[in-house]
Parts: sequence; C-alpha cells; structure tokens
Amino acid sequence: MEKFVWYNPVRILFGRGECENAGRMVRQYANRILLHYGGGSIRASGIYKRITEALRKAGVDYIELGGVRPNPRLSLVREGIELCRREQIDFILAVGGGSVIDSAKAIATGVPYPGDVWDFYEGRALPEEALKIGVVLTIPAAGSESSDGTVLTNEEGMLKRSFCSPLCYPKFSILDPELCRSLPIHQIAAGGVDILAHIMERYFSPTAGNALSDHLCEGAMCTLIEQIPRVMADKNDLDAWEQVMWTGNVAHNGLLGKGNAEDWASHEIEHELSALYDIAHGAGLAVIFPAWMKYVWREHPDKFVCFARRVLGVMTDDQERAVEQAIEKLEEFFGGLGLAVRLSEINIDDRYFREMAEKACKGGRIGAFWELEPDDVEKIFYLAL
Amino acid sequence: MEKFVWYNPVRILFGRGECENAGRMVRQYANRILLHYGGGSIRASGIYKRITEALRKAGVDYIELGGVRPNPRLSLVREGIELCRREQIDFILAVGGGSVIDSAKAIATGVPYPGDVWDFYEGRALPEEALKIGVVLTIPAAGSESSDGTVLTNEEGMLKRSFCSPLCYPKFSILDPELCRSLPIHQIAAGGVDILAHIMERYFSPTAGNALSDHLCEGAMCTLIEQIPRVMADKNDLDAWEQVMWTGNVAHNGLLGKGNAEDWASHEIEHELSALYDIAHGAGLAVIFPAWMKYVWREHPDKFVCFARRVLGVMTDDQERAVEQAIEKLEEFFGGLGLAVRLSEINIDDRYFREMAEKACKGGRIGAFWELEPDDVEKIFYLAL
Repeated sequence: MEKFVWYNPVRILFGRGECENAGRMVRQYANRILLHYGGGSIRASGIYKRITEALRKAGVDYIELGGVRPNPRLSLVREGIELCRREQIDFILAVGGGSVIDSAKAIATGVPYPGDVWDFYEGRALPEEALKIGVVLTIPAAGSESSDGTVLTNEEGMLKRSFCSPLCYPKFSILDPELCRSLPIHQIAAGGVDILAHIMERYFSPTAGNALSDHLCEGAMCTLIEQIPRVMADKNDLDAWEQVMWTGNVAHNGLLGKGNAEDWASHEIEHELSALYDIAHGAGLAVIFPAWMKYVWREHPDKFVCFARRVLGVMTDDQERAVEQAIEKLEEFFGGLGLAVRLSEINIDDRYFREMAEKACKGGRIGAFWELEPDDVEKIFYLAL
Repeated sequence: MEKFVWYNPVRILFGRGECENAGRMVRQYANRILLHYGGGSIRASGIYKRITEALRKAGVDYIELGGVRPNPRLSLVREGIELCRREQIDFILAVGGGSVIDSAKAIATGVPYPGDVWDFYEGRALPEEALKIGVVLTIPAAGSESSDGTVLTNEEGMLKRSFCSPLCYPKFSILDPELCRSLPIHQIAAGGVDILAHIMERYFSPTAGNALSDHLCEGAMCTLIEQIPRVMADKNDLDAWEQVMWTGNVAHNGLLGKGNAEDWASHEIEHELSALYDIAHGAGLAVIFPAWMKYVWREHPDKFVCFARRVLGVMTDDQERAVEQAIEKLEEFFGGLGLAVRLSEINIDDRYFREMAEKACKGGRIGAFWELEPDDVEKIFYLAL
C-alpha cells in the first residue's frame, strides 16, 4: 500500500425530506448568503421553492446567482466573485450538481483572493482563505459535494482545469433522494457513468496488496450496476435513488482508493473532450473509459480479470477473453443507459485528437496504471473513434 | 435506507514510518502535552523511544501518564484529570490501542467539566468542551482512533459504560503498520475479532435496500478473514499489517453502516462479560457473537444467507444448513486464531448470567436486528456456555 492522508470533514445529511433542513444548517454559519444554482430545472421541479422556503423559515436572507451551465464557466464565476464582494457575502449555498458546486467553490476561493481566480486552476497560486459553502445536491454524479476539488472551464482557449484545496470542502452537504426524481434520463445515465468512473479511477491502480480497496470498489461498482437501471426504469423509485445517491457520494469522498496510486488518466482525457465539444462529462467518460481499458489492460491483467469476475460476472478462465468480455459488457451497460460508446456516434471525428492529447498531458505524463504520453492518448482517442 | 448524518473529521496519517510525524502533528496544536499510554509494552518494543524522540525533535515538551490497562479504569482517568488541571495541559497524545485512546477521551472531556466525568458515561451530562487529542495507534482493534465514542469501566460495581460526543474525535490519528509487529499473538487475535465484530454489528441490520452497505461490509469482512491469519503467521508481514490496520479503521469510522439501523447488542452483552471477568473485549466477542447469531438468525434469514455465501463461501441452497455452516465456519475461524468460542472454555459458568443480562439491557431492550430483553440475553449466554 501507498502512504496516505485521509481527511474529509464534510457533514452529510442524508435521507428523504432532508432538504427541509437547508435553512437550519445554513443558519449556523450565516444569515445572509448567496444562493447559487443552474438553469430553470430547480424552479420547474419545485426544488427552488422548497429551499427558499426553508431559508426564509430559518431567517436566512439570500441574494441569487443562477445560470450555472454544465461544464461551468469562468465568466460566471467572475461575476459571482464581484457580487459577493459587493454584497459582503460570506456563505454560498450551492443547489445543484457538480457544476453548480464547482462554480461555488471557485467563487468561494476567489472572493478573498486579490489576484485572478483562474490562477488556482493553472497552479500559479493556492487559496489561503475562502467563503464557506453548503450544498443541496440535486444530481448524484460528480461527487463534488464531498470532495476538495473543483473543475472549471475558461472560455478563452476552452481550457478545462481543476484544483484541490481543503478550503473547497463544503461545511455540509444535504443528500435528499427526493430531489433526484425530476432528473432527465440522459442526465441520470451520464451521472451514473461519472460515479462508476470515480470508482474505476481508484480501482485500476498499479498498487498491489490493497485488498480492502479492491473489495470496497468492487462492492460500490456492483451496487451501481444494480441500481442505476432501476432509477432509469422508474424515476420515482426512491429506494433505488437512495442507493445511487449514497454510492455517488462514497465513490468520491476519497476513501475507496486510499492506499492505492490512483489513475485518473481517463478523467484528464475526458476533460479535453468536454471542454472542446461541451458534452456531459459522464457521456464523455462512457466513450473514453472502455478505450482506455483496451489500451492499458495488459499492463496489470490480474486487476482486469478481478474486475471481469467480481464486478461483471465474467467467468471464463482465459485471461484475454475475460477482459474482452468485461469491456464488452461494460460498453453494453453504457449502451443500455442510452449512451454512446464511440466518438463517431456523437459526431466527433479525429481532427483535434492530437491537440487534445497534448493538452491532456500538460507537457508530461498522466495516469498511474500506465503512465500515458500524448502518443498514447492519441491512440486511445482512435480506439474510441 | 434510514436517514443519517455522516461526519468524521479525524485526519488519518497512514503508512510505514508515519509515527515519525507524531511530533510535527502535535506541534500544530500544543508545545506541552500529556503523553498517555499503557503498560510496559511500548517501552519494550521501542515505540516509546520513537515517539518521545519525535516529540523532542519537534520541540514538544511532555508529562506522562502510563498504566492504562485493558478495560480502562475510572480511577486512572480521575488521576489524569487532576494531572492535566494541575499542569495546565490542553493536548493529550494517546499512544496505544482502544483502552489508551478511550482513557484519553475520558480525561479530555473530564478536565473542563466541573462535575464528575462518570456523569457522561451514565448519561447524566454531555461534555460541552474538551482538550484536544491526538493518537498514535499501536493495536488495530477498537477503532477508537476514528470514533466519537469512549468506553470506561467504573471499578465500583464493575460497570462498563460508554458515551459518544463529537468532542471525542481525535484531531489526528497516526496509523503506522510498523508499530504492530511487536503485538502478542493473543492480542492480534482478539483485535481481529473486535474489528470483524464492528463490521458485523453494522451488517446485521433489519434495514433492507442498502446494497452499498451490504457490499462494503462484506468486502471488509472478506479482507479481514484473508489478512488476519497472515499477520498471525508472520508478525513481520507489513503488507498484511497494512491491510489489517486500515480495515480496522474503516470498520469503525462510521461509514460502513450508514443507512442501516445498526445492531450493537453483542457489544452491549460482551461489555458486561469483560467488565465482570476482565477478559479482552475481542475474546469476549468471539464467544458472544456466534451465540447471538444462533439465537437471532431466523428473524432475517436472508441476511445470514448472504453472509454465508459472500463472506464465508458457503454454497448450499438449504437456508438452515447454510446458516449453520456459516456460524460453524466463523467459530472455526475464531478457534483457528487461538480463541475460545465457549464460556466454559474460559472458566465462566452461569452464576452471573441473569445479573449480566439485566445490566446489559439497562432496563430496556438492546439491538435492532432483534430487540432483546434480559430473558433473550440470558438465553444467548446459555448458548455461549
């Protein structure tokens, strides 16, 4: 096992109806806040009404900044920073999925910083202080509600970059499965893949001798493969939503990969794709991850045989066939969720493969399972074509 | 699933040689501390020397209170409270296993409390402030290094009681597998059972529809059943120790049972046993848990069939036989670790069964899988005889 530090101070409030506690929770930190959210969906679904009523009931005043879009943008973050400074806000409540939460983290770290918030994403500076954040999660996917990371897209150059800081941990995150019922099918599917990918990035590690991580990751993947189709089949199935929402959180709270050198190459590769083509992150991962698997599995075939057997129930003794069947089954699973598993299916051709490969590697190598150079990443893009 | 709050702010530093960081970690909180530990074992093993050198190197001064014994006692805690008050100490470094950590938690909450610290254990008061605690773990077992709980024995009446408070979370816990190599075989075995029991208490729940918890618990149990015999066979096997130590922590950091109504009856029952007979908690659990299983399994047989199949590899389709075989296999596993699985083997007869049963239930019922009354507990003791 590798040395590690495990620290995650986010308070999770989980359960049906828990969103009613949003006001009470916020009130512990502030009585005037920024309410940050996305498009119109939380209004249409009634979530906006439930949360603002909970805030009013707790005596919390709020100003609003909506309009966060998938693959959240630097321009709105800059607007939020100005707004918080002007209004002397020191607490942000993010109501949404990963994009809204990541946007809130960017604003929260940007407000007290005298420079440009993009510095953090380019690694030119580290935040030293930040506004406090709370979360009401509406999309189980990104895991940002329990992570110290934030991903943002800079429209100038379509750069998608991330950074991590303990200051990005929300003070609390409310996971109320009732809020998931109004999600569009495509978003459920993409979210499911995102969650699965968070586990796979931790699982496919070159580190040997970490049976606990192996078993925990396999268990979480099995849960997801069982439960995602249930919520796709019936969006009102709260029993299944509970399990998806909790798995989405555990997948990215940091625990499952502890002791492993984690990979994360597929995420880096996908970030270039969704920055350039503005597709959902999970939809991009459904294309990239199987291609990555095909390219790298021979480096540590045992891990893939375990994955095939324990997660996907592939029982053949032939190593190569087991891995092939596992990847096929995974692609079938993604396809069954209505997602493309080839770039050509979503009208992406090879014209930017080289450029994206080089941007993904940022002048070095990415990944741990197999350390990839731009040439490797380009080949993975072709396998995904 | 049940509603829940998940919050665990303990910073875990994990890995070989991490104990060298004890001084650096402590120094963030204090420059003069109480060093709290058990008997002579940390001196004989060289752990005392490594830690005190790390403290000196970081410029941390310390006063000492050793002598914590298994099933830690109120009298020493009172001594520690007086000592900290007199010496104006506000940080305690616990170097040891669960007993030392629980004793440190008692002292830490007792120092600023004007009444008697035993009030907390009797539920007559809740701590409102506490000294800060850090941990260097030497025995993977109790999980107290990541829990908000503490168990203490009051010699007057041999009462073993516990309480939980967020103030009991250590600021940090250092998990250095190298420190485990000098543990006596019996302590390794009892510790292994304690860890397994922490998972089983969370797993054997009446709550349905929590596949993630099922899978995580099963994975952690499988890891332990694989790895404990490895460290028993070779105490220098650091690869195996890493896995045992990390599993011991994850088993009791609270995550694995989230969403379940957890049981904990076997723990309550065992506490009476170890309070009266002063046996190791894990050794008591090795006797009590199989007896509890025999008594309760018919209440939710499916859970026991899953346990039989997924954790112990019992493949028969006959429900009753599967459960019987699983309990037998578990007893064989405990026996293989050199532990007794019957009270008669450790010279405990039935004379105090009724008294212990009534004390365990504290005037009500205990457990969630099956809510037990004193009559039930007495029958479990007889099954354990």
